[in-house]
Amino acid sequence: MQRPPIRILGIDPGLRRTGWGLIEADGNRLIYVACGSVETRERDSLGPRLVAIHDGLIAVIERYQPQEAAVENTFVNGNGASTLKLGQARGIAMLVPARSGLSVAEYAPNLVKKTIVGSGHGEKAQIRMMIGVLLPKADPQSEDAADALAIAVCHAHHRSSILMKVAAR
Amino acid sequence: MQRPPIRILGIDPGLRRTGWGLIEADGNRLIYVACGSVETRERDSLGPRLVAIHDGLIAVIERYQPQEAAVENTFVNGNGASTLKLGQARGIAMLVPARSGLSVAEYAPNLVKKTIVGSGHGEKAQIRMMIGVLLPKADPQSEDAADALAIAVCHAHHRSSILMKVAAR
Repeated sequence: MQRPPIRILGIDPGLRRTGWGLIEADGNRLIYVACGSVETRERDSLGPRLVAIHDGLIAVIERYQPQEAAVENTFVNGNGASTLKLGQARGIAMLVPARSGLSVAEYAPNLVKKTIVGSGHGEKAQIRMMIGVLLPKADPQSEDAADALAIAVCHAHHRSSILMKVAAR
Repeated sequence: MQRPPIRILGIDPGLRRTGWGLIEADGNRLIYVACGSVETRERDSLGPRLVAIHDGLIAVIERYQPQEAAVENTFVNGNGASTLKLGQARGIAMLVPARSGLSVAEYAPNLVKKTIVGSGHGEKAQIRMMIGVLLPKADPQSEDAADALAIAVCHAHHRSSILMKVAAR
């Protein structure tokens, strides 16, 4: 049975810049929808910066109405302060789609790389190149937007096996 | 000139349990208002757990109408995964009061301890004892609720100097 196409929102969270990317997965076909990033001002205090990420992601969800979301799951080795900052942005990136009723999948950076370039140690430039191959109409203006598209593509590839696992429970 | 009393919400964020505590500061006098904690189920996935923290804190703010908020600023040394979890809960703890229009101050755990027990290396039990002395009507049912009250007391002590700095700019 053919499943209907699904619209996926990928999010690459960051306090300074949170990338987002939308694709549609129609069977094995991937269609680019949109991408961008939500930026915050470093001179602002943490509360308003988190509000900016929150409101930016809500605007994306309201405009593009994705059905599922995927967020990168990563931390900065050995740097507690940086990991805490990232965690705060990531909390918002998980909260917003969850509150909108979307399922939110999490993927480790290595799995994202492996899905896109075939190896868990791919360079940023390789990911960007493969995004150009997989989604020829995409023209991400930032690395975060490209990474967000990569996360969405990763979810498109892995969601069927996740769904099957859930169905088999 | 006497300033009007101010109602302060202290938050001790955590993914499993987020403590909250409300006090009123009237000049040098501190009055206990309420405290508690928002708990999440470990078997739930991250999105719904963050939504639970979000909705729990919104309910506290709507019920008690605080005017300022303060959140502990800490990370787990050398444990990226734990710090990321904490950061995610902390992102929600900063977002909710900020979206409600409250100013949100941040305090390091050492400053909270120093303010309450006079030393940056106070034990948890000492903090709890001093909360009993400073807020005799408080009866926190969890360590997180007691810590949240301690953060609120810390803010009550330091907010005037922060306000003066802002006014002097």
